Amino acid sequence: MQLTMPLDMHLHLRDEDMLHNIAKDSVHTFSGAVVMPNLVPPVTTKESLLAYKKRILDAIGDEKFTPYMTLFFKPSYDKAFLESIRDELTAIKLYPAGITTNSEGGVSGFDVEELRPTLQAMSELDIPLCIHGETNGFVMDREAEFVSIYEKLANAFPKLKIIMEHITTKQSVEALDRHENLYATITLHHLLLTLDDVAGGMLQPHLFCKPIAKRPEDRDALLKVALEAHPKVMFGSDSAPHPREAKESCGCAAGVFTAPIALQVLAELFESKNASVENLQAFVSNNAQRIYGVKPMDKTVILEKKPFKVPSDYNGVVPIYANQEIAYSVKEVIYG
Amino acid sequence: MQLTMPLDMHLHLRDEDMLHNIAKDSVHTFSGAVVMPNLVPPVTTKESLLAYKKRILDAIGDEKFTPYMTLFFKPSYDKAFLESIRDELTAIKLYPAGITTNSEGGVSGFDVEELRPTLQAMSELDIPLCIHGETNGFVMDREAEFVSIYEKLANAFPKLKIIMEHITTKQSVEALDRHENLYATITLHHLLLTLDDVAGGMLQPHLFCKPIAKRPEDRDALLKVALEAHPKVMFGSDSAPHPREAKESCGCAAGVFTAPIALQVLAELFESKNASVENLQAFVSNNAQRIYGVKPMDKTVILEKKPFKVPSDYNGVVPIYANQEIAYSVKEVIYG
Repeated sequence: MQLTMPLDMHLHLRDEDMLHNIAKDSVHTFSGAVVMPNLVPPVTTKESLLAYKKRILDAIGDEKFTPYMTLFFKPSYDKAFLESIRDELTAIKLYPAGITTNSEGGVSGFDVEELRPTLQAMSELDIPLCIHGETNGFVMDREAEFVSIYEKLANAFPKLKIIMEHITTKQSVEALDRHENLYATITLHHLLLTLDDVAGGMLQPHLFCKPIAKRPEDRDALLKVALEAHPKVMFGSDSAPHPREAKESCGCAAGVFTAPIALQVLAELFESKNASVENLQAFVSNNAQRIYGVKPMDKTVILEKKPFKVPSDYNGVVPIYANQEIAYSVKEVIYG
Repeated sequence: MQLTMPLDMHLHLRDEDMLHNIAKDSVHTFSGAVVMPNLVPPVTTKESLLAYKKRILDAIGDEKFTPYMTLFFKPSYDKAFLESIRDELTAIKLYPAGITTNSEGGVSGFDVEELRPTLQAMSELDIPLCIHGETNGFVMDREAEFVSIYEKLANAFPKLKIIMEHITTKQSVEALDRHENLYATITLHHLLLTLDDVAGGMLQPHLFCKPIAKRPEDRDALLKVALEAHPKVMFGSDSAPHPREAKESCGCAAGVFTAPIALQVLAELFESKNASVENLQAFVSNNAQRIYGVKPMDKTVILEKKPFKVPSDYNGVVPIYANQEIAYSVKEVIYG
């Protein structure tokens, strides 16, 4: 099986030691990825964005890969600033305050007029807005409750591309078709898991993430649009590394580490559901190219149906399916 | 505040080292507790019941306390056997197969005729049936799905006292008033927690239990009947010790360890909700005495409003509120 120019439209590469520990393994099979800006402090200036990009390029060494850089949303970015950074900027990521890892400086309340300066400028400059859409309500309701905010913003800024990031519910899937300017990323783990996998048997910290995996009917709704390669959905791993000790402890951090084996597992999943390779190709690349208007660097990933034993960890970060066997292996990655 | 003859109608004391590690702390403030039989192998004979009782009495040493012993439900206990053990037996505990810790030998399917030999004998001998009521469905639905099984058994054996153990949902609360012979225990932690506390922020393995904590409206329904001391509800801690390393690991065991501070926290909870000490007394003792027809040994627990710092662990078992301060302390436990 051959996938060309695979893209991960939602990736956490972190910084410093963690960046160096996981960067190469996270990007090896992708032509590019939208890199999240929730560092400490978050990426909010041209200087910090360019410096972070340089650190990423240093960390990946000889891997051929484009980090699509993002800013951490602030309500008052002005248009001149965004114009000055436009060539280096792929999207802006909006976090509700305190909703996930390193999101303390995010948005509280979603008053359209308060957000207008940045959103109007983004709309005019055609910069996509990526949103982690959760309220601070009950954990199983947070995303469904946020749909009305997605819709309010979609209505207020009809030319702004709004990406509902890592959607987990049928309510978000349904919203896709109600608004021309709403799009979505879907992770690998939300195509695989429900809350049963996280907390139905033993509690599984390495499968705990935000948004938390939801009900079977939610996963089925996600699977449907992914497998049919709905033109408004894209693969975004939300691969989020934490050290093993931050996961297996009293107070486990949120995030599932999937990037190194994401394409392989997606290949197995699509095959098991009788979805075509063409649909997988659209889900992991073509849809994103069209929605974001990006031209990824040439990279072809050849997968073969040969069992692969997933490592127990990648430099101390435990991946999904650690120590388990998956059906597909990476045979070759061809550049250029 | 003074509580007389407090009873814990659902307690795990385990066996061997764990029994010795937690027995005294688990029973100190209670006159008696219904002790769960899910050992490996489970308690299913008179010999193993008496031997386990002896091990418990050895482990608690000079604590004054009555272990109310239970058998692990089997469909084919005959009446002569149950009669022979009646004086030593307080209840029989039914587990659906594989539903929680050490429940592999439990019941699969709930065919009334298959269960009739034991249930008919129990009904005739007035032995209460305690049930862990969960299906193997989606984790948030398991208990609500089981309500129809509770109702089927309640209808089929109208003179059998059926205790819905550690209820967590409003559906179970509502079933209480539909069937004269349905009763319930409620834990401390299900009066305090929702899934938000377990998985809404960081993942909290020490708050992970089965049944898992549910939605806010479920907790509110439990609180209502506990605080008003509904005559058919009793306190049952389901205090369930696991070693720290079985909780803080990849694949965390289910159970919250609460017994050593349960009365103190209940006192704080009832006070904070303006419920009377009389209702607390009924919830932690009088209702259970009436429902089970037990006469506990004299024990009076004097609580005082004085901050108590909960230990980080009791011999390696991490309790709820570890390292935190609670409002009430045990001033004195008076025997006889």
